[in-house]
Formats: sequence, C-alpha cells, structure tokens
Amino acid sequence: MGTVPLVECVPNFSEGRRPDVVAQIVEAITAVSGVHLLDVHTDASHNRSVVTCIGPPDAVAEAAFRGAARAAQLIDLRAHKGVHPRIGATDVIPFIPVRGVRMADCVALARQVGRRIGEELSIPVYLYGEAATCPDRRYLSAIRRGGFEALKAEIATRPERTPDFGPTKVGPAGATAVGARFFLIAFNVYLNTDDVEKARHIARAVRASSGGLQHVQAMGVLVDGQAQVSMNITDYRRTPLHRALELVRREAARYGLTVTHTELVGVAPLEAWVQAAAWYLQVAGFRLTQVLETHLLDD
Amino acid sequence: MGTVPLVECVPNFSEGRRPDVVAQIVEAITAVSGVHLLDVHTDASHNRSVVTCIGPPDAVAEAAFRGAARAAQLIDLRAHKGVHPRIGATDVIPFIPVRGVRMADCVALARQVGRRIGEELSIPVYLYGEAATCPDRRYLSAIRRGGFEALKAEIATRPERTPDFGPTKVGPAGATAVGARFFLIAFNVYLNTDDVEKARHIARAVRASSGGLQHVQAMGVLVDGQAQVSMNITDYRRTPLHRALELVRREAARYGLTVTHTELVGVAPLEAWVQAAAWYLQVAGFRLTQVLETHLLDD
Repeated sequence: MGTVPLVECVPNFSEGRRPDVVAQIVEAITAVSGVHLLDVHTDASHNRSVVTCIGPPDAVAEAAFRGAARAAQLIDLRAHKGVHPRIGATDVIPFIPVRGVRMADCVALARQVGRRIGEELSIPVYLYGEAATCPDRRYLSAIRRGGFEALKAEIATRPERTPDFGPTKVGPAGATAVGARFFLIAFNVYLNTDDVEKARHIARAVRASSGGLQHVQAMGVLVDGQAQVSMNITDYRRTPLHRALELVRREAARYGLTVTHTELVGVAPLEAWVQAAAWYLQVAGFRLTQVLETHLLDD
Repeated sequence: MGTVPLVECVPNFSEGRRPDVVAQIVEAITAVSGVHLLDVHTDASHNRSVVTCIGPPDAVAEAAFRGAARAAQLIDLRAHKGVHPRIGATDVIPFIPVRGVRMADCVALARQVGRRIGEELSIPVYLYGEAATCPDRRYLSAIRRGGFEALKAEIATRPERTPDFGPTKVGPAGATAVGARFFLIAFNVYLNTDDVEKARHIARAVRASSGGLQHVQAMGVLVDGQAQVSMNITDYRRTPLHRALELVRREAARYGLTVTHTELVGVAPLEAWVQAAAWYLQVAGFRLTQVLETHLLDD
C-alpha cells in the first residue's frame, strides 16, 4: 500500500450565494490529480463557502493555488456582503498535517503557496498560524480586523499591515491569509432550554479566554429556538472532546439543564473519536493500534 | 490507492509453551506476500497461541493453509496438555470479512482452505460458523465437545462426527475447525471487589444465554484478585460495546459495586470504537464518514 504523506487544506471563499461560482472554484481544486474532496459547506447568510480537501502536499498546494486563482477571477470583494469577517475572495487557506507530514512541512507549504498567490496573482498575502512571521499575525482575528474595507484603507500607510507577499495594494480580490495549523474540531452542544443567556454563561465557563479549558473557544447562541454552546477545539490531543462535553454538562447541571444532543461539524480525525470511546469505556492501557484500521492506514 | 479487499484470519494453535514452535508457525504465515501480522497472543496455561493476520482473500487463505501444514509437523496432540478445549494442532481457523468482501466470500474461503487441509494434509476438517454444513456445527463448542480425546474415540463410529473434508481418522495433528464469522470483540470489565460470585451474577444478567443481550457471551472470573466480567461481543453492530458496558455497570450498582477499568483484548474495528464515542458524546446524525480516515481507507 505504501505510506503517502497527506495534508488537509480548508480554503474559505467569500461566496455562498451563487452555486455556479462555488462549483467552478471546487472544480479548479479537484482537477488536480491526487486531491480528494471531503466536504463543501456553503452558507448563504455568511455568504461564504468552506472547502475541505486532502491529498499529498504538492498536490494540495497546487489545488489551493488554483482555487485562489479561480476565485480571484469570479469574486469581487467590493460587491460582497455577509456577516462573517473577511478580507478576500479567497479569505483564508490553512494547511493541516494529517499523516507522514510535520507542522514544519505545512509551514513550508503555506510560504510556497503564499508566495505564488502574491507574485503570480498580485494579491497581498498574510502568513498566519504556525506560519506567522510575527506574533501579531498568529491569529486570523488580528489579520482580519475591520475586514476588507479597513485593510484596503490601511495597507499602504500602516507598516503593521504590510503583507508577507504580494503588493501593498488591495484589488477586487482583496487579500488572503495563508497558514498552517493543527486540526480544529467544531463541536456544538445543545441544551434543553431556549434561554441563550445560560448558554453564554456556560461558554464563558468552559473556554480558555475566560479561564476555562486551554484549547477551547466557545460562545452561546440560539439555533432554531434552542440554546447551544458552540465550541472550537483547537488541539483535541490536549483538550479532548469528552472533557469539553463533560464540563459543559456539569456547568449546565448547575442551572438544572441537560444536554439533549450534540453535533460535530464536518470531520474529525480517528484519534479524536477513539480517545473519547476509550475514556468513556474506561479502557486501561489503550493503544491506537487496537483500532483495526490503523494497520491498514500505516502500510 | 485502490480498494484492496481484505479478510482477517485468526488461527488458533495448540502450542503456548515452546516459543520456537510458535515462531516457526508465524513465519510460515507471514511468508505469504500481502499478509500482515496484527497480533500473536501466546498463553502458557492454556498452552495455546492465537495469531491475528489480515490481507487479501487469496493470500490469507494460503497463509492459513501454510500455518496449518507447519503446525501439523511440529505439534503432537497426543502429548498436549492445557485447560482450553481443543481438537487439533491447528485447532480453529476463522475467516472474517473486513473490507470489500462479503460473508459469502469468507464461507467460500473456509471451504477452499478446509478442503486443502483435508486432502493435502489428511487432517479431518469441520466447517463451522457461517460456513457450517448443518446447524449442529454452527458453534465451536459442539464440534470441540470432549476435545481431541473424545473425537479420536468417536470419529469412525458416530455419523455426526464425520468430517466435512479429510479422513474419518484422527492422527497426531488432530482435527481442525475451519469457518467464517463476523468480527468478535473480547471485552473485560473489572469491578472494585474480589467477590467473583458477584461477577458471575452480573455475567448471567448480561449474556444472551440466560436472558441478557443478544450478541453477548459472558462469564465471571477472578483475575489477579479482582472480579472480572469477561465478555465476547459477537456482533458489535447490533449489540454495541457501550450498551454491554452500561448494562454491566447498572447490574454492578445493584450490589453497590463500580467499574474500575476495562480491557479490550487485541483489536476492534474502527466502527466499534467510533459508535461508542458517538453514543457517549450524544452526536446527532452521526455518519462514519465524519471520521477523517474513512476517506483514506475507501480510496
């Protein structure tokens, strides 16, 4: 079978209302041999699409570049409306190590793809996450502050806005953040209440930024009349799913609330699922090699 | 990557005290190209070794035959002592469908390997499990009743002992049961007591044969001074791990006991682990494709 090194890439495009445009971008990505499409999540209110693909590093890098090139032809940020913060037609391109690839390899991929987008497409590129060239650019929120409009106004005059690659000038395709990061799991917990304030209290208790679990971002929202604690788990190896859920459950119990169900958005690695199983099943001395399929993946 | 059909095979050999003999049998099995060794579990008190391997159907069939041929040269049942019921040097060979293979294919493999062992090695072969040729031979316990000694005495005179393949005569290598079955999970639950009677009560409550869960076999035993409910789950899709564990936990609570830890012997399929995770994590609308690696396996 032979170990093929694999990288995941989850480019976000600022288009969620014109299916034909999304289809053309996805086509450009999947046209690259070896690239496997896992998911396309299109959101009309955010006016945004998230494409999840996987493949060998070089193929995924080529696919990400082609997707960005196609998006630059089809999306004009000057006409874009949507509630999600964004700076570009291709807003963000993260590379995630999956198998036989180190984070350093993904950082190198981000630099390589960022340079091409800057030089060949004349789009300003900001490296972020593990690929960031300074601490201020580690988090997307800082790079995207004020969105396309603020960046357009400030890029030429404020030194902290100078891109890592490409011109200090924003065209219709805007700018793109390209980076490397660990796998992120979006995990939402629904409560048996329509009181969103309770969900917000619980979110504050469990998230890192207000004293909770280290690798958890969380907010309380109301979804179809039901309160939800919406979480991003940014390092499931150190803050596993079961710990985040059990803490939400305990905080909810303090208000007399229970968890009706959860949802895991998109995909999560086998290890994230299986570590939860081993914990709840109380399996002593558990090893990942006790999952039959790990033997099929490694060979 | 291309889907390679895969079959698991778990031949049991009546040798657990001479490591060199076990090594020679394992060598014969792994010498077949495409066969991947997952586990060798050797037990001196049972005087028995369980070899777990996986590979394409034809390769695994060849490996099983070669293992049986080697065992027939090296193990003499007339001198064999051990507490586990057994009828042959190669006692039992089950074929289990893993990927891209139906149970019917494994039944065909069992017949093919059984015929070769009967004809080429002159060893009586009984087809069992899904490959059984009559209801009485479905369960190993019926085929092995009385062990090697009873079979040797009865094979020529009792019609129900007539083998499916090979001679109606038992030599030093004994007889072999060859069959096809679904994946079996050995799952042991430890209680915070040394009172083995309580474990036996709980085992009776949870196992199918005395009114419990359909695909659970269970017994209470004492392991290193701690009571254990030892279970075989013979169809994890219909009776999942979490249901078996939670029922044991509930029955234990009736005696004021708790589960200290569990152990899962050998390997279990990804689906068995992940369905437990999805249940405990209360994931609504869970699909197996939400496990990233399933996309790497299918292609």
